[in-house]
Amino acid sequence: MINFALRRAQNIHWQALEVNKASRLSHKAPEAPLYLVYGAVGIGKVDHCQNILEKQLYAEGHHTCLLDGDNVRHGLSRDLGFTEADRVENIQRIAEVARLMVDAGLIVLVSFISPFQSDRAMARNLFDEGEFVEVFVDTPLAECEKRDTKGLYAKARRGELKNFTGIDSPYEAPLKPEIHLSGTMASPEEEAGLIVGWLNG
Amino acid sequence: MINFALRRAQNIHWQALEVNKASRLSHKAPEAPLYLVYGAVGIGKVDHCQNILEKQLYAEGHHTCLLDGDNVRHGLSRDLGFTEADRVENIQRIAEVARLMVDAGLIVLVSFISPFQSDRAMARNLFDEGEFVEVFVDTPLAECEKRDTKGLYAKARRGELKNFTGIDSPYEAPLKPEIHLSGTMASPEEEAGLIVGWLNG
Repeated sequence: MINFALRRAQNIHWQALEVNKASRLSHKAPEAPLYLVYGAVGIGKVDHCQNILEKQLYAEGHHTCLLDGDNVRHGLSRDLGFTEADRVENIQRIAEVARLMVDAGLIVLVSFISPFQSDRAMARNLFDEGEFVEVFVDTPLAECEKRDTKGLYAKARRGELKNFTGIDSPYEAPLKPEIHLSGTMASPEEEAGLIVGWLNG
Repeated sequence: MINFALRRAQNIHWQALEVNKASRLSHKAPEAPLYLVYGAVGIGKVDHCQNILEKQLYAEGHHTCLLDGDNVRHGLSRDLGFTEADRVENIQRIAEVARLMVDAGLIVLVSFISPFQSDRAMARNLFDEGEFVEVFVDTPLAECEKRDTKGLYAKARRGELKNFTGIDSPYEAPLKPEIHLSGTMASPEEEAGLIVGWLNG
């Protein structure tokens, strides 16, 4: 594991910025939470939930941003692989970016696998009370393997992909997600509607 | 230097997201550029320009976000130091975050030292035509050393800080910044007003 404390830069002063989260939010609806949507690989988190959720929020006039784990790996995390240390670093970077965006007053939708409880707890700690909304899409492994739209489970079963969540890398189910979706029972539109309902209180 | 190509993750698919920059911008003013404000260390980029600029944009109803180089080093880049490779990586991360925020429809103000032309060219390449606005605050070194509000130039002159831009690390002046401010002639409010004027066309 990387010891960040040892590499932390010295001589960095925190800049007090004069237009802050509170003043930004006064321009907008009073809420700007992060939605962290996650579950196993390839269960259609984006297809079945996030895109529909973002469209529903957009239609209501909310200002959203979708941070997709795969897209981030093309840019911000292009230098990271899939070792445990690299996965932790990837999640930390995404959480930091999400925090900057929540500070800027956006509703941020984050979609990534996040198999470890400790990583999710680390991400939650970056946010204020009520800002961090865990949405757990609890699709059973057998159903994930049946869908397998990108052929990744088949590759992992053949041993061509290592450290694959659910196959040869553990998945720690969340203890108390704010929203728990079965991933199989409701339609994607109904699942997104449940999340929008949570936002609207 | 780090060879990113060798470490680039495989099996990453680009997600086509359905609420895109164009639809987000239709909710807002038609422009969402990045302002990259930079110059030498401790010349008061934030104090003299960015905060005032953000307040002026905020007063006009724009949705802004200020990405401050020092603040990013407390979070997203907390694992990076000040070697040349780490500086390049820091700038790449900031540029990637700024791109995600511009995609989300924000006017992003980025403040960092960015002494190398190649880094700024790399950052510019991430953005569409017209989105990347370089603001060069061209304060002379002697004036920077006279101000030295954080005592960093004095430390660097005593040899306590290595790789310090302008002292023992080079500063490559930009060739064609969109906006060139002297950093000494106008008041901070006048300088910010010049930038807002550029935005308003």
